[in-house]
Amino acid sequence: MKAVLSVVLVLVVISSTIAKYIPKSGKRIPQTLSRGWGDQLIWAQTYEEALYWSRSRNKPLMVLFHLEDCPHSQALKKVFSENNEIQKSLDEDFIVLNLVYETTDKHLSPDGQYVPRILFVDPSMTVRADINGRYSNRMYAYETGDINLLISNIQKAKKLLKAEL
Amino acid sequence: MKAVLSVVLVLVVISSTIAKYIPKSGKRIPQTLSRGWGDQLIWAQTYEEALYWSRSRNKPLMVLFHLEDCPHSQALKKVFSENNEIQKSLDEDFIVLNLVYETTDKHLSPDGQYVPRILFVDPSMTVRADINGRYSNRMYAYETGDINLLISNIQKAKKLLKAEL
Repeated sequence: MKAVLSVVLVLVVISSTIAKYIPKSGKRIPQTLSRGWGDQLIWAQTYEEALYWSRSRNKPLMVLFHLEDCPHSQALKKVFSENNEIQKSLDEDFIVLNLVYETTDKHLSPDGQYVPRILFVDPSMTVRADINGRYSNRMYAYETGDINLLISNIQKAKKLLKAEL
Repeated sequence: MKAVLSVVLVLVVISSTIAKYIPKSGKRIPQTLSRGWGDQLIWAQTYEEALYWSRSRNKPLMVLFHLEDCPHSQALKKVFSENNEIQKSLDEDFIVLNLVYETTDKHLSPDGQYVPRILFVDPSMTVRADINGRYSNRMYAYETGDINLLISNIQKAKKLLKAEL
């Protein structure tokens, strides 16, 4: 009897050691770097990292500001992530970064901090303030209906400022 | 016959529009913010974001520098992610951030940039340079055998510099 109890005790100890940690509030689904904006794209984590990749690979950078609890962001995310033309172009020709928290770099908010907001940065590290959407009070905002304008802006950003070095 | 061909053509067009984008190199598994260091933890994406959470929630911050292709990082990651004491304590009492790219903040590299490297930051935004590992030439490095020292350092970092405000 004692031996059986010992064995059970040992097994309990072992299994509790092996069992992976689960929060009291229940198991969580790990957050992805894509945050739903394109699971097949390779997203940079930080602006510094994205700038480094952009310069070293000579590819333009797209920076996307959004918020998980903003309905405009969520609506754009659905259209954006399901648009194969956008996804293919970004995957093949761009460095991509999405942020839910503003950076300290003022160049990324030429007309204020709002979401959703999309800015392009040339590999020469110039923020392309000339590539904008259709709203004069929020120049870098896009609505779901602006997806074709966004596609044409992606094409514009692809043409580097200094094509020949 | 013509009608059948038209229907087939329409179906092909529809399905190719609906089909999700897949890179030429094959389908990718989306990268998580945890990068394998604890899938149940809520990881900050950037240092700015982590500092904001730390201050607003009055919780210390752990910043972990590592590299995906560094064998020392990978070995520590396995022990770190499977240690329930570490995972529970970090989940309940800390803000956590892991980075594969250095920040511009010099305070996070008191004795140089190397990986793996772990620094603690107090909610008062003071980098706890006093909380270190056992290697005099790499004060903030931890090997797999140092896991108990890391656990005791986590406990040390939990005691805030200004417990009473």
